[in-house]
Amino acid sequence: MKEDKNKRRSNIAKMGAKLFSKKGFAETSMDDIAAAAKLSKGGIYHYFSSKAEVLYFILDNFMDVVLEQLREALNKKDNKLERVRGLIFCHINHYPKYLAEAKTLFHEVQNLPPKYYKNIIAKEREYNHITHNVLAEYFGPSMKRNQVTAMTFVLLGMCNSIYAYNPENPVSPKQMSQMIFDILVDGICGIQEKNRGEK
Amino acid sequence: MKEDKNKRRSNIAKMGAKLFSKKGFAETSMDDIAAAAKLSKGGIYHYFSSKAEVLYFILDNFMDVVLEQLREALNKKDNKLERVRGLIFCHINHYPKYLAEAKTLFHEVQNLPPKYYKNIIAKEREYNHITHNVLAEYFGPSMKRNQVTAMTFVLLGMCNSIYAYNPENPVSPKQMSQMIFDILVDGICGIQEKNRGEK
Repeated sequence: MKEDKNKRRSNIAKMGAKLFSKKGFAETSMDDIAAAAKLSKGGIYHYFSSKAEVLYFILDNFMDVVLEQLREALNKKDNKLERVRGLIFCHINHYPKYLAEAKTLFHEVQNLPPKYYKNIIAKEREYNHITHNVLAEYFGPSMKRNQVTAMTFVLLGMCNSIYAYNPENPVSPKQMSQMIFDILVDGICGIQEKNRGEK
Repeated sequence: MKEDKNKRRSNIAKMGAKLFSKKGFAETSMDDIAAAAKLSKGGIYHYFSSKAEVLYFILDNFMDVVLEQLREALNKKDNKLERVRGLIFCHINHYPKYLAEAKTLFHEVQNLPPKYYKNIIAKEREYNHITHNVLAEYFGPSMKRNQVTAMTFVLLGMCNSIYAYNPENPVSPKQMSQMIFDILVDGICGIQEKNRGEK
């Protein structure tokens, strides 16, 4: 019974994320979510007591998934450079699968009530912290601590750029990951050289 | 008289952007904005008919400012590489001055009614289009068109990362701009070499 309720909640959250990422949190009503999840107007309150609860469920689960997948991707690799590569590919790999959830995170996290907001921000910080460590290990003493911190945000900014990117464009998530890895490690020159090599 | 009303509207918008970027659009009321702008609860409606009108005024003006400053920065430079540098420095330079407006753009644009939303997105596209052209000119035929498009988003993602960045950290916007320029042009190796040179 409980498992069934959890499944239902996940399904409602999936529909909620689609609506939030498309119409925005403010413009989406509980009735909209109920309709998308094929529930009655009142029926949805059996699963979530408010729209903010739906938002929190979406973001909390999404952060758990991305943290778990990041740890898994890194556990598989010993080489420091391969860990940087693994992080980039893992991050961008979420794009096709969790587009609505990621967009909801970027645009709607501030609509959470304070206690929920704090929990999500703590998980985001954990993600940033892991990224920081992967970069710090790769760079070693060649990079100053505050440079690594700035670089952490620059790298995550590069990775998140895929969410602003028009998916009709023929660059796949995999190509995007490779491009970001190349820029980070070799800069544009490296990509230009590769292009020349392909000709 | 009209000039005075415009000044008042700008002042209200400034307060609105601060509140939206701090509490979120959904959690901010017209009463909150009126209080912050030192107006009576009813007085604010003399200047804006709704919260969405305040949001639109903020974002529309912000996009006009960034587009104008981008064009100015580029007009000053002939050299293709210097135009890339100018674009990065100009973009990041907005950070200390327009923090609230930029955060409001990232997080709240989806809360605009459709007709307003379209206008802002059109101005964002114009900004992306200019960035695309600057990169395409710099790369010349060495980069494929879809690579330039992807690179445009990667570069803007890097630049926007400063808004996720903790301002308590001792890397200044200027250092951040330089780091992004170096990553883009030379990759990490270039920065490491510079660090070695400083020692």
